[in-house]
Amino acid sequence: MENKKKVAKPEGKLAVLIPGLGAVSTTLMAGVELARQGKGAPIGSLTQMGTARLGKRTDGRTVKLNELVPLATLEDVVFGAWDIISEDAYQVAVRSGVLSDKHLEQVKPFLQGIKPKPGVHDPEFVRRITANHIKATKTHRESIEAIRQDIRDFKKELNAKRAVMVVCSSVETFRPLPEAFQTLANFEKALDSNSPDINPTALYTYAAIKEGVPFANGTPNAAVDTPALQEMAKQEGVPVAGRDLKSGQTMMKTVIAPALKARMLGLEGWFSTNILGNRDGEVLDDPQAFKAKEVTKSSVLDTILQPDLYPELYNKYSHKVSIHYYPPRGDAKEGWDNIDITGWLGYPMQIKVNFLCRDSILAAPLVLDIALFMDLAKRLEWRGIQEWMSFYFKSPMAHPGLPVEHDLFIQLTKLKNTLRVVAGEEPITHLGLDYYGDDLPLSR
Amino acid sequence: MENKKKVAKPEGKLAVLIPGLGAVSTTLMAGVELARQGKGAPIGSLTQMGTARLGKRTDGRTVKLNELVPLATLEDVVFGAWDIISEDAYQVAVRSGVLSDKHLEQVKPFLQGIKPKPGVHDPEFVRRITANHIKATKTHRESIEAIRQDIRDFKKELNAKRAVMVVCSSVETFRPLPEAFQTLANFEKALDSNSPDINPTALYTYAAIKEGVPFANGTPNAAVDTPALQEMAKQEGVPVAGRDLKSGQTMMKTVIAPALKARMLGLEGWFSTNILGNRDGEVLDDPQAFKAKEVTKSSVLDTILQPDLYPELYNKYSHKVSIHYYPPRGDAKEGWDNIDITGWLGYPMQIKVNFLCRDSILAAPLVLDIALFMDLAKRLEWRGIQEWMSFYFKSPMAHPGLPVEHDLFIQLTKLKNTLRVVAGEEPITHLGLDYYGDDLPLSR
Amino acid sequence: MENKKKVAKPEGKLAVLIPGLGAVSTTLMAGVELARQGKGAPIGSLTQMGTARLGKRTDGRTVKLNELVPLATLEDVVFGAWDIISEDAYQVAVRSGVLSDKHLEQVKPFLQGIKPKPGVHDPEFVRRITANHIKATKTHRESIEAIRQDIRDFKKELNAKRAVMVVCSSVETFRPLPEAFQTLANFEKALDSNSPDINPTALYTYAAIKEGVPFANGTPNAAVDTPALQEMAKQEGVPVAGRDLKSGQTMMKTVIAPALKARMLGLEGWFSTNILGNRDGEVLDDPQAFKAKEVTKSSVLDTILQPDLYPELYNKYSHKVSIHYYPPRGDAKEGWDNIDITGWLGYPMQIKVNFLCRDSILAAPLVLDIALFMDLAKRLEWRGIQEWMSFYFKSPMAHPGLPVEHDLFIQLTKLKNTLRVVAGEEPITHLGLDYYGDDLPLSR
Amino acid sequence: MENKKKVAKPEGKLAVLIPGLGAVSTTLMAGVELARQGKGAPIGSLTQMGTARLGKRTDGRTVKLNELVPLATLEDVVFGAWDIISEDAYQVAVRSGVLSDKHLEQVKPFLQGIKPKPGVHDPEFVRRITANHIKATKTHRESIEAIRQDIRDFKKELNAKRAVMVVCSSVETFRPLPEAFQTLANFEKALDSNSPDINPTALYTYAAIKEGVPFANGTPNAAVDTPALQEMAKQEGVPVAGRDLKSGQTMMKTVIAPALKARMLGLEGWFSTNILGNRDGEVLDDPQAFKAKEVTKSSVLDTILQPDLYPELYNKYSHKVSIHYYPPRGDAKEGWDNIDITGWLGYPMQIKVNFLCRDSILAAPLVLDIALFMDLAKRLEWRGIQEWMSFYFKSPMAHPGLPVEHDLFIQLTKLKNTLRVVAGEEPITHLGLDYYGDDLPLSR
Repeated sequence: MENKKKVAKPEGKLAVLIPGLGAVSTTLMAGVELARQGKGAPIGSLTQMGTARLGKRTDGRTVKLNELVPLATLEDVVFGAWDIISEDAYQVAVRSGVLSDKHLEQVKPFLQGIKPKPGVHDPEFVRRITANHIKATKTHRESIEAIRQDIRDFKKELNAKRAVMVVCSSVETFRPLPEAFQTLANFEKALDSNSPDINPTALYTYAAIKEGVPFANGTPNAAVDTPALQEMAKQEGVPVAGRDLKSGQTMMKTVIAPALKARMLGLEGWFSTNILGNRDGEVLDDPQAFKAKEVTKSSVLDTILQPDLYPELYNKYSHKVSIHYYPPRGDAKEGWDNIDITGWLGYPMQIKVNFLCRDSILAAPLVLDIALFMDLAKRLEWRGIQEWMSFYFKSPMAHPGLPVEHDLFIQLTKLKNTLRVVAGEEPITHLGLDYYGDDLPLSR
Repeated sequence: MENKKKVAKPEGKLAVLIPGLGAVSTTLMAGVELARQGKGAPIGSLTQMGTARLGKRTDGRTVKLNELVPLATLEDVVFGAWDIISEDAYQVAVRSGVLSDKHLEQVKPFLQGIKPKPGVHDPEFVRRITANHIKATKTHRESIEAIRQDIRDFKKELNAKRAVMVVCSSVETFRPLPEAFQTLANFEKALDSNSPDINPTALYTYAAIKEGVPFANGTPNAAVDTPALQEMAKQEGVPVAGRDLKSGQTMMKTVIAPALKARMLGLEGWFSTNILGNRDGEVLDDPQAFKAKEVTKSSVLDTILQPDLYPELYNKYSHKVSIHYYPPRGDAKEGWDNIDITGWLGYPMQIKVNFLCRDSILAAPLVLDIALFMDLAKRLEWRGIQEWMSFYFKSPMAHPGLPVEHDLFIQLTKLKNTLRVVAGEEPITHLGLDYYGDDLPLSR
Repeated sequence: MENKKKVAKPEGKLAVLIPGLGAVSTTLMAGVELARQGKGAPIGSLTQMGTARLGKRTDGRTVKLNELVPLATLEDVVFGAWDIISEDAYQVAVRSGVLSDKHLEQVKPFLQGIKPKPGVHDPEFVRRITANHIKATKTHRESIEAIRQDIRDFKKELNAKRAVMVVCSSVETFRPLPEAFQTLANFEKALDSNSPDINPTALYTYAAIKEGVPFANGTPNAAVDTPALQEMAKQEGVPVAGRDLKSGQTMMKTVIAPALKARMLGLEGWFSTNILGNRDGEVLDDPQAFKAKEVTKSSVLDTILQPDLYPELYNKYSHKVSIHYYPPRGDAKEGWDNIDITGWLGYPMQIKVNFLCRDSILAAPLVLDIALFMDLAKRLEWRGIQEWMSFYFKSPMAHPGLPVEHDLFIQLTKLKNTLRVVAGEEPITHLGLDYYGDDLPLSR
Repeated sequence: MENKKKVAKPEGKLAVLIPGLGAVSTTLMAGVELARQGKGAPIGSLTQMGTARLGKRTDGRTVKLNELVPLATLEDVVFGAWDIISEDAYQVAVRSGVLSDKHLEQVKPFLQGIKPKPGVHDPEFVRRITANHIKATKTHRESIEAIRQDIRDFKKELNAKRAVMVVCSSVETFRPLPEAFQTLANFEKALDSNSPDINPTALYTYAAIKEGVPFANGTPNAAVDTPALQEMAKQEGVPVAGRDLKSGQTMMKTVIAPALKARMLGLEGWFSTNILGNRDGEVLDDPQAFKAKEVTKSSVLDTILQPDLYPELYNKYSHKVSIHYYPPRGDAKEGWDNIDITGWLGYPMQIKVNFLCRDSILAAPLVLDIALFMDLAKRLEWRGIQEWMSFYFKSPMAHPGLPVEHDLFIQLTKLKNTLRVVAGEEPITHLGLDYYGDDLPLSR
């Protein structure tokens, strides 16, 4: 870590290309524009508000992350999107009911200017939405070609030097990973044969990678974390990350589970229920779509709690996750968690967490950060899995053979220490013995 | 950190000496004995159940903490206590209502064998308890002498080679730090003049330090984190730590506040209320005693959230803490927290946490860990403030000029990395770029 | 209501006969015996602890319900039970984990003396239980005959003058009401043809009615509230009541919904989730069994809120009920309700109720009351539907053409005013204008 | 109850005169105007939305309350107010932050037209508000005279035939009831001597009664439920009611406590905490003002639970109520209640209620109902205490010697049965035996 790597400067515009023009992406777009106008703060975004301490605590060197490493600025961000419904970003934002009338009014022309290109649609994967804005392509190969052409067109239209893709579309129905995704060769064959196993998100992924565009998957849909597409990403030298934005209840889970483990408190059971009233909820009312979500939500606890290391504490807990479509909630989302823990000698205690949150408000800044960091990775010439992006995902990716990391605080340490090292600084260990000189000598 | 320091082996018995034979200390004693009999697991204790990963993730080297560094074993722990009420540990444990009849029965003779030595009492500091077991000393100097003699006697009676003191007594009434505590010279004068400003806990502290016994303060009472007694601890070369065990609601606060900061979510307000029904609650019903508790509970948020670094997010939140004596709760304790947060563009969200916990069950393993780690510090010849013990305290100590650390996860990293370095291992940074070889090169 | 009816005295023993020797029934049996021994209070029982004010408030006449009308005393209650598992009541109670070791010890011989007679079993209706104690009957008619013989035997063995039956067995799988239950003639034919549509509970019902034994159904299983068996009950002149004990979350729902209506507050949605860990929960994990429960749980709101009368307030709310088997809860049960209400001009508000309750503890006194009141009804020579028993059921019965009453407070008024009238007292209207004489004249 | 009393028709305008132009009264005014414009529904108001069933359930006769008895219509309601701050109703409503911008816009001119007359102020009773709009009177007698003149002026200015007064001002500091309030003679003397014991609210009360204006007290301030002013109200033949609107947490308490009693469940403790951020909260931050509120909030439980009748269940519970000023809540209000109950044999259970409510939204319709019903009482020539108004108050009034009624459902029955009788209909007893003819005969 001795010498600082030269990073290419983020010159020109950065096109953030988003399959899925829905509540999350329009909340992001409106917010970026409001922030540029000085009418709203990009709260929730590490790239805009985060800092890192450098050196020793007594050095007093703390810098903003976007000063520590060269990131695209909000001024340089431009947006493109695909959707299977033809509404423009303003119409979508109004319908989504996330932002106040006042906020919407202030960015109306800006949002109206963002019109989606037609999306790739497969009613087998997205069942509860009536599409009216679909590509006329007939085969997977044609769809990929069309998306690639869109990417090139977006860059021209938006006058962008660079692009990243972040998928924010609806949840697709779940199916166990088919053969087609096991190797890149299989996948190519499945494309050729127009296999019904290939989901639309996978087509966007393939297209992005082929275009050399950094790719991140904000949904639970099968995409770049399948063996086939990982292989391809590595081959093509494109940085990738996913899957499924970690915004509400799961985020809290990755906060509280590490706390239990920190304190060596046992776990008897964790019951999570979730009510949400937006289109996401409606889609998840389809049990097959819910299944996909459930899978990304469930793996979290075991990975954090390490029952193999701590069998007395964590080898027999119940973990239940349920999601309910409940229209009164609107775009807001509410989680109720009941956590049954044990302490000294096995005595039981309970923690109950009621989180009244807003889905798109939590997700929008994550998409922004992901876009800016993935662009940094590209300029660093990093390729393949970006493990340091784990902070943002319910089901993060890691090098084969490495455990994925779900603990929010370890994820943050990993992210910040990575940025420190990129900037030629020392990673932080929180050790601190050195401040105590002769008092706490390590050796004599 | 290149060479491993030689640590003296923990030979012989370790006497854990506890001012305050109450619910916490008897729960600890019963639990240690039950664990020795194989009838109860020391859940909640890092020294007994915790592990540390060593080296790279792919090395597969994870060891128990008590194998990483040489700690006294449960078999070698013996107990001594002081109290102003003459009940033995069994009587106290029965009255406290923490443990089940079955557990109490199994350790009845053991607990009956633990009888407190008479305590130092000052009714101005402890108002709601009727004392019946008080030292006959007339001056502070006499009291200190008596405690020192007790320490020497305990070691003999218990056949112990080493001792540590951990204060677990009732909360004393709060008063702003008097002059007497500002310098050691002042303190000595105040002792000479038998000043009413000197609280009983301070006398135990002074005695322990003079006897070279590592000292930790599990209560909010003024003790070793005053300038006078810090000075003395350093002078005498005794390791010290405090104050106020971080067990329930505050522990959760130091979990959730770091999560908000990790995600750059703003804070509008945090309302915490607490109901408890044990003697602690009864004592805290005295507003002056509550004041002491409130002070240690309140500082937590500002230190974690760093409003100076993040003024947009954290410079104007309301923070209210209230504690209520509510007899139906018994030794159990219940916290309800309402947390008003803001996300993207300032939109409000709420988190509510209801923690149905048990005070003594959460506190007992902390006392055990503190005792064993402070004994380690002593054998390492470490002196003065043990910042790496911050993990255990509501109001931890740090070297003058350093910010205290309240974030539970940073505290844990600090503790484990300290132990790694003691054992001659590398501290962990969670960086992980090295696993990715050519994919994520740092330099070329 | 002018003259008081002569009620036959409750002479001799009353046999309470219970299909289903599980947690509820053994908790009832143990509690009745503990109350007789003076070692436990029959809390939750109106017949044992309830009172009624008689006459005007200024009269100072308040009597216990069991002094107002002649009820069997606890001393005269004896128990009989059927089950498909051969354990005695003590074994069941121990396994159920409801009562403390101390309580169980005090009634051990009493409970051991209660051994179930073999039950009628149909694995199509009760899927998750392995039966080992089943009647050898081959046809429905044989089963009915065997149950009737059991009833006669119980009365002899228990030396009882009278009997009542209260079903407390497991939830059977749900099926839409089959033709067989539409008329008594159909039902008789279905019995003759040994139809698979006839559930075990219906056989117990038929047998009880034929024996002239008052019958109440504490489960959601199809029984006496089907047209066929109502017809039969009326024909045979036997008092009947059901279905499904109103113990926990639904009880609270019938408390809070009336409060919203009382205040004319609107309802946008009501989300109820329930976690339970006992056999009931395990059985309900079978979606078909859950369906039966869901049906009785769901009808409650509409009936109370009367959307036809208050369309602006109640014609479009979402109502979701979910039940989850969650083993850490044991026999305890926990409900979480989120209620979205609207006030003045439609502004939204929320009520959240977290009920940490115990299933069998809440249900046992209801079974006791039902048994004693149904015996009263029999002695009053009342026949058919006992609407005044609505207080006890999730899905109460009413005369065809009458709305069923779910409001807990109206149910209580109905019950107490019925008892007042039985005793020759005036029903209470809470009017109270008469106390004010000339101040609030009604006419001049 | 045989003959229907002639009630004078509500002809002409009704002036609703309100000491205290704050969040509650402006929310009421705006809402009445919005309802008149068809832009908002008067949700929460019995007089506007409530119905009563008449006769038997099978009669199908259900009428709206405002068709059952002759009430003033919203069209005929006009408003007058006093305040010690000079802002008009629009300015107050904007500052209060209760209503949406859209609602405020729609009634802006209407609200701007409502300007308060100067209020009577005593800084000893209202400490935290800076008054700028005060009557120039020097003595209590002068103040009363000025208020009486205001009442006469309001009627002229508003062209009203009738008036009612409902106090909605800030909470005054509490003092134990002084001698001055024990008899009317004392009170007159205290007025003559300008006694500092007389609070402003009492002056409004005196003035209203002298003017023959029906008077209701929506605050906890001492007013018409003191012996002196009750005496006066009766003497002058004016209907009166109070005190303290039962809107949020206390309303829920009077719902849940009756449910516990209905089920004969025991109570170990009830802990209520409340956070609110509006001016009410700021005023209540003065411990003396809080004291007044606490008193009206605390009496509720004992009266409902009748520990004298049910000593085993209710003679030793803890009841704690706390209120906290918490600015992030704004005009919204949040209650958290923890209720420790016991069931069968004393086993403990817990209910937790989290009520996210809005103070003014809940209170406004109560003020409307009170005004319209008090006007009805006046036209009925009813005088003195209106016990049937108990439904609306935290601390209702009853004839000396009668227990006050706190149970929300009994209060509602009382209110509706009173209206039925006023209309010449039978009160409802919920008895219902008559529907069952020969099945449930009462006598033969």
